[in-house]
Amino acid sequence: MFYHVKELQYNAKPERPDPVYAKKLQEILGGQYGEMTVMMQYLFQGFNCRAEQKYRDMILDIGTEEIAHVEMIATMIAQLLDGAPAKEQEEAAKDPAVEAVLGGMNPQHMIVSGLGATPTDSVGYPWNSRYTIASGNLLADFRANLNAESQGRLQVVRLYEQTNDPGVRDMLSFLIARDKMHQNQWMAAIEELEQQQGEVVPSTFPKNLEKQEVAYSFMNFSEGKESAKGRWASGMSMDGQAEFEFDESPKPMGQIPILNPSPNYVHGTPIPGQLPPGTKAAEYEQQNQMNDGGPH
Amino acid sequence: MFYHVKELQYNAKPERPDPVYAKKLQEILGGQYGEMTVMMQYLFQGFNCRAEQKYRDMILDIGTEEIAHVEMIATMIAQLLDGAPAKEQEEAAKDPAVEAVLGGMNPQHMIVSGLGATPTDSVGYPWNSRYTIASGNLLADFRANLNAESQGRLQVVRLYEQTNDPGVRDMLSFLIARDKMHQNQWMAAIEELEQQQGEVVPSTFPKNLEKQEVAYSFMNFSEGKESAKGRWASGMSMDGQAEFEFDESPKPMGQIPILNPSPNYVHGTPIPGQLPPGTKAAEYEQQNQMNDGGPH
Amino acid sequence: MFYHVKELQYNAKPERPDPVYAKKLQEILGGQYGEMTVMMQYLFQGFNCRAEQKYRDMILDIGTEEIAHVEMIATMIAQLLDGAPAKEQEEAAKDPAVEAVLGGMNPQHMIVSGLGATPTDSVGYPWNSRYTIASGNLLADFRANLNAESQGRLQVVRLYEQTNDPGVRDMLSFLIARDKMHQNQWMAAIEELEQQQGEVVPSTFPKNLEKQEVAYSFMNFSEGKESAKGRWASGMSMDGQAEFEFDESPKPMGQIPILNPSPNYVHGTPIPGQLPPGTKAAEYEQQNQMNDGGPH
Amino acid sequence: MFYHVKELQYNAKPERPDPVYAKKLQEILGGQYGEMTVMMQYLFQGFNCRAEQKYRDMILDIGTEEIAHVEMIATMIAQLLDGAPAKEQEEAAKDPAVEAVLGGMNPQHMIVSGLGATPTDSVGYPWNSRYTIASGNLLADFRANLNAESQGRLQVVRLYEQTNDPGVRDMLSFLIARDKMHQNQWMAAIEELEQQQGEVVPSTFPKNLEKQEVAYSFMNFSEGKESAKGRWASGMSMDGQAEFEFDESPKPMGQIPILNPSPNYVHGTPIPGQLPPGTKAAEYEQQNQMNDGGPH
Amino acid sequence: MFYHVKELQYNAKPERPDPVYAKKLQEILGGQYGEMTVMMQYLFQGFNCRAEQKYRDMILDIGTEEIAHVEMIATMIAQLLDGAPAKEQEEAAKDPAVEAVLGGMNPQHMIVSGLGATPTDSVGYPWNSRYTIASGNLLADFRANLNAESQGRLQVVRLYEQTNDPGVRDMLSFLIARDKMHQNQWMAAIEELEQQQGEVVPSTFPKNLEKQEVAYSFMNFSEGKESAKGRWASGMSMDGQAEFEFDESPKPMGQIPILNPSPNYVHGTPIPGQLPPGTKAAEYEQQNQMNDGGPH
Amino acid sequence: MFYHVKELQYNAKPERPDPVYAKKLQEILGGQYGEMTVMMQYLFQGFNCRAEQKYRDMILDIGTEEIAHVEMIATMIAQLLDGAPAKEQEEAAKDPAVEAVLGGMNPQHMIVSGLGATPTDSVGYPWNSRYTIASGNLLADFRANLNAESQGRLQVVRLYEQTNDPGVRDMLSFLIARDKMHQNQWMAAIEELEQQQGEVVPSTFPKNLEKQEVAYSFMNFSEGKESAKGRWASGMSMDGQAEFEFDESPKPMGQIPILNPSPNYVHGTPIPGQLPPGTKAAEYEQQNQMNDGGPH
Repeated sequence: MFYHVKELQYNAKPERPDPVYAKKLQEILGGQYGEMTVMMQYLFQGFNCRAEQKYRDMILDIGTEEIAHVEMIATMIAQLLDGAPAKEQEEAAKDPAVEAVLGGMNPQHMIVSGLGATPTDSVGYPWNSRYTIASGNLLADFRANLNAESQGRLQVVRLYEQTNDPGVRDMLSFLIARDKMHQNQWMAAIEELEQQQGEVVPSTFPKNLEKQEVAYSFMNFSEGKESAKGRWASGMSMDGQAEFEFDESPKPMGQIPILNPSPNYVHGTPIPGQLPPGTKAAEYEQQNQMNDGGPH
Repeated sequence: MFYHVKELQYNAKPERPDPVYAKKLQEILGGQYGEMTVMMQYLFQGFNCRAEQKYRDMILDIGTEEIAHVEMIATMIAQLLDGAPAKEQEEAAKDPAVEAVLGGMNPQHMIVSGLGATPTDSVGYPWNSRYTIASGNLLADFRANLNAESQGRLQVVRLYEQTNDPGVRDMLSFLIARDKMHQNQWMAAIEELEQQQGEVVPSTFPKNLEKQEVAYSFMNFSEGKESAKGRWASGMSMDGQAEFEFDESPKPMGQIPILNPSPNYVHGTPIPGQLPPGTKAAEYEQQNQMNDGGPH
Repeated sequence: MFYHVKELQYNAKPERPDPVYAKKLQEILGGQYGEMTVMMQYLFQGFNCRAEQKYRDMILDIGTEEIAHVEMIATMIAQLLDGAPAKEQEEAAKDPAVEAVLGGMNPQHMIVSGLGATPTDSVGYPWNSRYTIASGNLLADFRANLNAESQGRLQVVRLYEQTNDPGVRDMLSFLIARDKMHQNQWMAAIEELEQQQGEVVPSTFPKNLEKQEVAYSFMNFSEGKESAKGRWASGMSMDGQAEFEFDESPKPMGQIPILNPSPNYVHGTPIPGQLPPGTKAAEYEQQNQMNDGGPH
Repeated sequence: MFYHVKELQYNAKPERPDPVYAKKLQEILGGQYGEMTVMMQYLFQGFNCRAEQKYRDMILDIGTEEIAHVEMIATMIAQLLDGAPAKEQEEAAKDPAVEAVLGGMNPQHMIVSGLGATPTDSVGYPWNSRYTIASGNLLADFRANLNAESQGRLQVVRLYEQTNDPGVRDMLSFLIARDKMHQNQWMAAIEELEQQQGEVVPSTFPKNLEKQEVAYSFMNFSEGKESAKGRWASGMSMDGQAEFEFDESPKPMGQIPILNPSPNYVHGTPIPGQLPPGTKAAEYEQQNQMNDGGPH
Repeated sequence: MFYHVKELQYNAKPERPDPVYAKKLQEILGGQYGEMTVMMQYLFQGFNCRAEQKYRDMILDIGTEEIAHVEMIATMIAQLLDGAPAKEQEEAAKDPAVEAVLGGMNPQHMIVSGLGATPTDSVGYPWNSRYTIASGNLLADFRANLNAESQGRLQVVRLYEQTNDPGVRDMLSFLIARDKMHQNQWMAAIEELEQQQGEVVPSTFPKNLEKQEVAYSFMNFSEGKESAKGRWASGMSMDGQAEFEFDESPKPMGQIPILNPSPNYVHGTPIPGQLPPGTKAAEYEQQNQMNDGGPH
Repeated sequence: MFYHVKELQYNAKPERPDPVYAKKLQEILGGQYGEMTVMMQYLFQGFNCRAEQKYRDMILDIGTEEIAHVEMIATMIAQLLDGAPAKEQEEAAKDPAVEAVLGGMNPQHMIVSGLGATPTDSVGYPWNSRYTIASGNLLADFRANLNAESQGRLQVVRLYEQTNDPGVRDMLSFLIARDKMHQNQWMAAIEELEQQQGEVVPSTFPKNLEKQEVAYSFMNFSEGKESAKGRWASGMSMDGQAEFEFDESPKPMGQIPILNPSPNYVHGTPIPGQLPPGTKAAEYEQQNQMNDGGPH
C-alpha cells in the first residue's frame, strides 16, 4: 500500500515559462525511457517477485521513488506551460518569436490538457506498457533496468544542454545524480547475481541441450574484417567457458525451404490441377486444357 | 547493400504440424524481444553509427544474421500451421482434441495470413519499432542489446520446455546457442567501452554539474530494511568513485507545488472572482454575490 | 513524494490457482478501465491541478489508493498463475482439461512474464496512456472519473460472476465496494461544481457566441419517432436554460462542398488542361487533343 | 442502413487558408474526444443495444449526426490546407513567416494526404477504437457519453480562442451549440435511468455481496486534511444509502504478499538448492557448497 | 449529411449462437481489412476529393454502403454471443465442450462489451486509422481500394468455410457478392484513370528527373535465377515505355557511408581526444595518456 | 540467409545538413508506405510463399533490395541531422531562422537518437507491422504491393518538390525510378496471375454460393446521379461475367434488428420485471409497483 506527502522529492520550479521546452521535457516523463517506464517496470517487477524478499524490497523502494520523479517532472512541465501564448494565427505571424513558440509547442498542451503535463513523449506519442519488462528472471530484468537508467540519464543530459533556465537545470542535476546511483545500483545487483548464477541468462538451461558448435563463434556476415578487431572476436569468452572464434565466412547450415501448397479451404494461390470445380479459376484451367493442355 | 541465399542459416523443420505451438512461437518472431526487434535494433544502430568503423561493422554483422533468424522462425511457423483444422464449430465440438486446437490457435493464422507466419507476438499484437533503440551512445545501446539477448534467450528456453517436437527443439537449440554467443559478445563490447569511458552513461557529463549529495545514496522508500542487505547498499560503488550509502528514511527536499490558475482562454476550472461576464458561471456568481456575498 | 508499506490494502489470496481466470482478471488491471487507468488518470489530474488545494488533495488521495489496487490485483494474478501447466502439446491433447487450460491461458504469462501479472488487458493488449484524461477542467474530468468508476465496477462485477473461488471473490467484494464509494465521491464533487458553475462544460464560454438555434434541439436522423419518447426530447433542458425541442426531420444547413483542385507540386489527380509539360499525363492529353480535342 | 445527401449539416468554409490551424483542428476530428470517437461510440452502442427501442433509436440518431460532423470538419481542414506553401527549406528560411508555417504544419498533410484531412489528432497520432466504449449497460455508457461531450466541447472552445477566421468560428459556434445540446441530452437520459435503477452502476449487484465496511468511506492517503473539506467527505452519500465517512488515516487490511518460487520449467531467478543438475547455476552452487557451504 | 433507416441492408440472423465464431467474425468488422477500414477509407477519400464530382459522388456512395456493412456484422456478432456460457472455471472444466467455448471466446465480449460486438479484430486488437489511406491521388487510392476489397473478400470466404450456420452463411454470401462488385468497380475506375494518365503513379513527375538507367531493370538480389522466368523480367514494360531488363548480378552504385562524429552536446560515444575536460571519460583518457599514450 | 556489403545501393549524400527536412524524410523510411513497410511485407510474403518457386524467388529479390533502401534513407537522414543546432530557447528566439529550425525539428532526433534516423514516420509515430500484409494469396498480395509502390512513389515525388539539395534529389531520383520499376513489376505479375485465375480474388470460391443478385450492381446511396457517369456503372464488368447495373435507389433487404435482453450475469441495462431480488434496481421497482404499478 502507498502513502503520499505533499512536498516534492526535490525542487521543480523553473525560473520562467518555456512552452517549447515543455514539449521536449515530455520525453523523460512519458517516453520510451522516461520516468513512467521505470516506475511501472519496477513496480511490476516488485509485485511479481518470487525471489528473496530483499530483492522485492529493493525493487519496490526504487519503484516508489520513481513515482515521485513522475510527480516532479509533471509539476515542472505545468509551470513551463504557464505563459503559453494563445494569439490567433494572423497576429502571431507578425511576430516571429511568438509564432515560433506557437509552431514549436505541442498543440495538445493547449487543446487537450489545458496547460498540463501529458503522459506522452516529446512527439505526443502516448506511453504504453510494452516499454516495460518483468520477466520473472531478475538477472535478465536488472539488465533491462541498467539499460533503462543508461538511456534515461543520456536523455536527461541532452535536455540539460538544451536549456539554460537555472530552475530546470537544478531539477535535472538531481535526476542526473539519481540516475547515476541507479546505474550503480543495478550494476551491483547484477554482479551479485552473476557471481551466484553465471553470466548467461538463463543459467538453468542444460548446456548439453544447446548447439555447442555455434555458442562462441562470431559470424562475419558483412564483407571486410573490421569486426575482427574487437574483444568479442578473440580471447576467453565473458562467461569463462570457451574461447571466442571468428568465423570469417559463415555458411548456411539449413535447408532450402519449400512449403506445402495450402489446402483448398484456405483459398491461397491456386495450384493448377487442384482447383475446385465450378469456380472461375477452374473454368479457366479447363478451357485451356481443352485447347492446349493447361495454363503454362 | 544486401544479398540473399536460398538456404536457411540452420534447420527449421518440425516433425509434425502443431498450430497451437505456432501461435506461441510467434513471441520470439514478432514479440517485444523477438528476432524482428534485434534485427531492426542492430540495423539502425549500425546505419546510425558515428564511432569507429569496427563497431559499425560488428553491429551490422549481427544485424544481418538476425534477418536470417527471422527467416528461420517464419519458415518454421508456416510448417507448424500445415495441418490446421478448419472444421466448423458444431462438428468440432464433438471432438475435444480438435476443438482445443481450434480454440487455442491464433484465428488470424487462418483468416488473415492463410497459414503463414505473421509479424506479431503470441497474442497477435503487431511488432512496433518502439521496441528498439539506437541512441548514438554505444555503451547505452550495448546494454540494451545485452538485455534483449537475455530476455530473448529466456523466452526461447521457455518455449523449448513447451514442445517435444525434435525438429522444433533442434532449431531452438541453435538459437539458444547463438543467444549465448550474443550475450557474450555484448558483454565483451561493454567491457571494452567501460574500460575506456567509465561505467556510468554518459561518461561525458561534468561531475560538478550533478547533485553530488544524492549520487550514491540508496533511498529506502518502503518500511522495513530488507533492502539494506544487498551489494547496492554498502561498499564501494560500481564506478569506483564513492561509497554506497543507505538512507533509511529519505525526506522530501522540494517544495509543495502550487500551480497558477489557468488563464481565461484555457477554460479550466473557473476561479471565483475571475469569470468573464456573460457566461453561465459568472451569472451564478453574480447572483450569489448579490444575495449573500459569494458562491460559498 | 510517496512511501510504500508492505501490507496490501486488502486480502488478495486465491484459494487455488486458475491460469485461465488470471488471463481474464488482467482486464481490470491493465484494460481500458482497469486500475492502471484510474491510477494514472488521478495522479496526472492531481499533479496538473490549478484549482483549490482541496481538490488537488482529494484527487491525489484517491490516486494513491489506486496504486494499491494495482498492487493487489497484480499479486492476485501471480498467485492464480502458480499452477500453470507446462506440458507439451502432444501429451496434453490426451487430457482435454489440461489442454483447455493451456489453450485458454495467455501464452505471455508463461513465455514473457514467467508466471507474473502483465500491464495488459484480458486479450494481452498493452495499457496506454490515451486511456486517461486530465483536461484542466475539473467538472469535465470528474465526469470522466465517474464514467471510469462505472465501467470499472461493471467489469469487476462481471468477473465476480465468472469465478467461485472464495479468495478471489473476497478481494473483488472489496473492489466493488470501493468503486461504489468512488462513484459516490465523483457524483458529490460534480454536484458541488455544477452548483457553482452550471451544468454545461465549459461554463465560461459566452452564450452569445454559440449558435443558439440548435442548442436545445434533438435531431431525429433516423426514420421513425421512438426517440421522441425520452426525457431528452421535451421538457426543460437539464441546464434549466430552455425547453428541449424535437426536430422530426432535420435539414442540412450547409453548402455542398466543392474543393479546389490541388496545386501541381502535390501531384494529386491530374486535372485535364493543367498538366506540367513533359510528363506522362501531359503527353496523353496532348496526343488526344491533337487527335480529337481531349480526353473528355 | 444509411443514406447520404450532398449538403453539409452546417457551413464549413474558412475565410482564408491556414495550414497551421488545420493541424490543430485535427484534434476534434481524430483525437481522443474528437468527432470520430463519438460517431463510432454511438454507432456501436446503438448496434449492440439490448434495451428498449427508444434508446436504440435515440443513440443511432445522434450517431448518425456525428458522421455529418466528421464530414464538416474534414471539409474544413481540406480548405484550410489550400494555401499550404511548398517552398524548399533554403528559400523559406529567408522569410520567417513562411518558415514558421512550414515548421508548424503537420508534414503528413503535404506528404501523405496531399492537402486533405487525416483521421488523426493534432500531433498526428492515428485514431483508434479503444477511445470508445459500448458496455451493454446504458447508464455506464451515457456517463461515458456525457464525459465525451464535455471534453469535446471544451476542446472546441479552446480552438475557437485560437483563430479569428469568421468562417471557422461560424462552424465552431455550431458545434459548440450541438455539444451543449448533447450534454443536456445525456444528462436527461442519465436522470431517467438513475430514477429507475439508482445511481450506482451496475444497480443489479446484491448489496450483501460487497464489502459494506468500506463502501462509503473516503480514505485520506495523503498527509494533511484539505480533502475533508468537500461534499464527498461528509453528509448523505449521493445514492442516499449511507453517510460519507472520512477515514483520516487508513490502515492496510491485507497480507504481506509472499509469492511461491517459480517452477524449474519457467527458468526464473534460481533458488539455491533447487537447481537442475548440469546447469551453470548448479555447478556454481555445487562448487561453493563443497568449498564453504553455499553461495550465501 | 447522413440519414439512417432501421432495416439492415441484408439479413444478419444466425440460426444459433456461437461465441467462438463471434470472435473470429470480428476480423471482418474491425480488422486491418474489415468493414470499418473500407468505410473510413472511402469516407475520407470522398470528403477530401479534389477531382471531378462524379468521383466524389461514387466514392461516397460506396462509403455510405460500408457503414451499413459495419451495422450488419455488428448485429450478427451480438446475436452469436447470445448464448455465451458464464459458468465458473471449476465446473466448466468437467464439461470439455463448455470449457472449449469459454477458452475460445474473446473474454472482452463478456467483460467489456457485455455480449456486444467490439470495434476490434479477431485477436482483440483495436481498429486504428493507419489502416486507411486517402492520398489525394485517385489512381493510387483506387489501387488501395482494390487491394482492400481483395483482401477483404478473401477473409470473408475463409470465414464462410469455418461455419455451417445457414444464417451466417447467408449474410456472408451477400458480402462476398458485394466485394466482387467492389473489386470490379475499382478495376473499372482504375482503367478509366490509367487510360487518361498512364499506368505509373504519379503520372505528373517529369521523366527526365528520374534515374532512367534503373527504371526498367529487375535486380536479382538472391542467388539462382528462378525469378527470371516471370513476365516482370522480360518483354515490354506494363507502361509501354521500355523493355524489362534482368540484371543478374546487381552491383552497389553508392558510397561506403562514414558518418561524422557527433558533437559534444549530444553525448554520443566519446571520440578519444575530443573529450570535455572534467568528465569521467576525459579523466580516464588523461590518465592513460600520461601512463602510456592513450586508451588504444 | 543474408549477406551485407558496405557500399550503399546508390548515393546518399546531401550537400548540406537540413534537420527540418530530415524530419520529413522519415515518412518514406518508417511511415505507412515507407521502405520499412515494403521490406517487411515482401520478406514475409516470400518466407510464407506456398506457390511456385519463381514467385518466392522474385519476391525475396525485391525484399532484399528494400533492405538496402532502408539503409540509404537512414544514412541520408543521419547526415541531414549533422548540423542540428542545440542552442537553448532564449538565445535562439533572437534568431528567427535558428528558432524555426529548432521548432520544426523532431525533438527525438536530438534527445532519443542523438542525430540518427529513427524507425518512425514524419510525425514521430513508430512503424508497426499492421502496415504489411502477406495473405497467402499472391494475386491479393500483389495488389497490396502495387498500391504500396504507388503510394510510396507519390510520397517520394512530393518530398522531391520540398527540397533543392542536389544530393538529396539525386538519391530521390533513384528511388523514383525504382518505384516505377516496381509498379511495372507488380502490374506484370498481376497480369500473369489474372490470366490464369480470373480477376476476382479469390478465384476459387464457387459462384453459386454467392448472392448473384447483387454481384454486379452499383448502389447509389447518395442523392444525385453523378456517380452513374463512370465506367463502373454500365457496360461489361471487368471480370467479363456480367453487365454492370446502376441501382438508383437501393432499398434495404434485411430485418429491423431487435436483440435479446442480456442475461442477468452480464449486468446490462436492467429490464423491468426481471431484476434480481435484493438489488438497488429491484428495490426501486418493488417500491414503485407497490405505489403505482411500475416505473413507467
